[in-house]
Amino acid sequence: MRRVSLFAIATLGSMFLGQTVLANDMNIVAEPGHPSLQAFRLPDTPPAPANNAPTPARVELGKKLFFDPRLSGNGTISCATCHNPTLGWSDGLPKGIGINGSALPRATPTVINAAYNHIQMWDGRKRDLEDQAMGPMEADKEMNADIDAVIRWLNENDGYRQLFARAYPGEPIDTDTLSRAIASFERTVISKDSPFDRWSRGDRRAMTEQQVRGFRLFIGKAECVKCHSGPNFTDDGFHNVGLASFGDPEPDAGRYKQVPLRLMKGAFKTPTLRDVTRTAPYFHDGSAATLEEVVRHYNKGGEVKTNLDPNIRPLNLTDEEVADLVAFMEALTSPFIEVALPELPR
Amino acid sequence: MRRVSLFAIATLGSMFLGQTVLANDMNIVAEPGHPSLQAFRLPDTPPAPANNAPTPARVELGKKLFFDPRLSGNGTISCATCHNPTLGWSDGLPKGIGINGSALPRATPTVINAAYNHIQMWDGRKRDLEDQAMGPMEADKEMNADIDAVIRWLNENDGYRQLFARAYPGEPIDTDTLSRAIASFERTVISKDSPFDRWSRGDRRAMTEQQVRGFRLFIGKAECVKCHSGPNFTDDGFHNVGLASFGDPEPDAGRYKQVPLRLMKGAFKTPTLRDVTRTAPYFHDGSAATLEEVVRHYNKGGEVKTNLDPNIRPLNLTDEEVADLVAFMEALTSPFIEVALPELPR
Repeated sequence: MRRVSLFAIATLGSMFLGQTVLANDMNIVAEPGHPSLQAFRLPDTPPAPANNAPTPARVELGKKLFFDPRLSGNGTISCATCHNPTLGWSDGLPKGIGINGSALPRATPTVINAAYNHIQMWDGRKRDLEDQAMGPMEADKEMNADIDAVIRWLNENDGYRQLFARAYPGEPIDTDTLSRAIASFERTVISKDSPFDRWSRGDRRAMTEQQVRGFRLFIGKAECVKCHSGPNFTDDGFHNVGLASFGDPEPDAGRYKQVPLRLMKGAFKTPTLRDVTRTAPYFHDGSAATLEEVVRHYNKGGEVKTNLDPNIRPLNLTDEEVADLVAFMEALTSPFIEVALPELPR
Repeated sequence: MRRVSLFAIATLGSMFLGQTVLANDMNIVAEPGHPSLQAFRLPDTPPAPANNAPTPARVELGKKLFFDPRLSGNGTISCATCHNPTLGWSDGLPKGIGINGSALPRATPTVINAAYNHIQMWDGRKRDLEDQAMGPMEADKEMNADIDAVIRWLNENDGYRQLFARAYPGEPIDTDTLSRAIASFERTVISKDSPFDRWSRGDRRAMTEQQVRGFRLFIGKAECVKCHSGPNFTDDGFHNVGLASFGDPEPDAGRYKQVPLRLMKGAFKTPTLRDVTRTAPYFHDGSAATLEEVVRHYNKGGEVKTNLDPNIRPLNLTDEEVADLVAFMEALTSPFIEVALPELPR
């Protein structure tokens, strides 16, 4: 009961987090190496729950589980199928496609830097990576796993039994240790060494002039930073950004399903912009194919004005400024995260 | 026309290849380092067509294509989905499952050492890796690609255009270069450094005593080597091995569909035994879950006797001998083939 209340408080708090971070960002000086740019510096390691420090044994186990299609109902689909490392740890599709070609209602969020999120999923219905891990496995249109059968199978598999014993000595193999292992691997999927990061630490050659102009627009005229704020370029808040799909006869209510406040109707979580060049198409409904389309959407102040977030308004950006903003987002691309496919227990 | 005839001759020839190799194998002396064991030594590099030497540029391109789900009809399935490196470059399923959960009629063959095959597919309907590559892509129950659209997309994609230009300078991006690139990557998926290989080169500690006993049975009493012959432990021939499924009302005719000789009814290609511990379940119909089940099937001389290959007869192996044979097959396992997932062109 206590846990639920704390979560509710955190949830309500996160809706206003954007405002808090904005206050800091207002003082940002767009000069390479300026101390104010520390506002965008990610901690070296993402936070982890006290009972799940990411030891090598946990990461190794979690990686195998992440890539193992035998955790799905028909053995064809793993976490890595939709969160595909070759496609920005997402799937390159407007909306996800689960087991047996099942159409899913929203775009697949990337795993990249999900470890830094204060709340998970487009509608924030999961607290953290541990809380999230079992969701897609159990969902009948995603991995459609028979969880009892999966847990039984893991307990009967010699290889997995040893890996769990090393990762979580003295603990049973159950949904709790399964989720914690997967979360431990996901905490290694980090983007934090982009040209922007090098520039902000003082390397003035790391960004082009156009990218610097884009950054100035980002924190200035275009006010992107109002929501895409802080080290992970997200306020972990929820906003209705006026997408055309909100004009559908039965639009996706988004965050409203979790928090029935009018402000949350059609509001979705601000995604990180780190590695955003790798995660097209964009928006929760996959309606923008390119970053230019995204910027043009904001430039006209959104499409559907009903219940629009008060921060969304026409930006009056020129074509050149639109291109500058896109160029800046390119500078948020870190080196490709190399992952060697693991050998799975037989 | 000339090409077709040569293929037909090669095809007919391959049916008797087992006999030829047997003649050599009869002289094998099961002592570590014995020159006769060179009969099992794979060449360092597998053969490649004259127009497709596996240059680094071709392998790099082919790897990206192999892992790219955007080559499928709905963007969800790549070559690597069913030929999954984490599951022995196969799928761990009794029979394949293609796009949208489509049930496929046979088990997914491994890519491991397919480069050494003289003929491809369970029924030998493809000549070589180049010939095979487009098959699953086009099949409506496998990747269900609109090939014209795929070729158009590759031609429009800057990244792929550059990769193709480096791999096949002066050649167009078409199904020919697409297949050759994928085949080039597949030629790197090689298993040839197993405990048995080290033992056969003279390292007497590389196999256990039980494994050596298993090898003696393999080339002796059990006569496995009659079909699982030569460096890749296959005669590249086709045999009806008396599986229960051949007793079905409408059994899979196998090779007979390609070569309508009675001997070929229900005959399927002898699979390699290299890395066989990684590619369960077994047989073209996935009917054996373990290698022990496979050996027990042969030990009783098959299940269905109709049109049985004349080499299949009860083996009179003791339980200990069955275990010895399985132990020998464990010794055909090479180090895990590590593959780093590639960054795909956007």
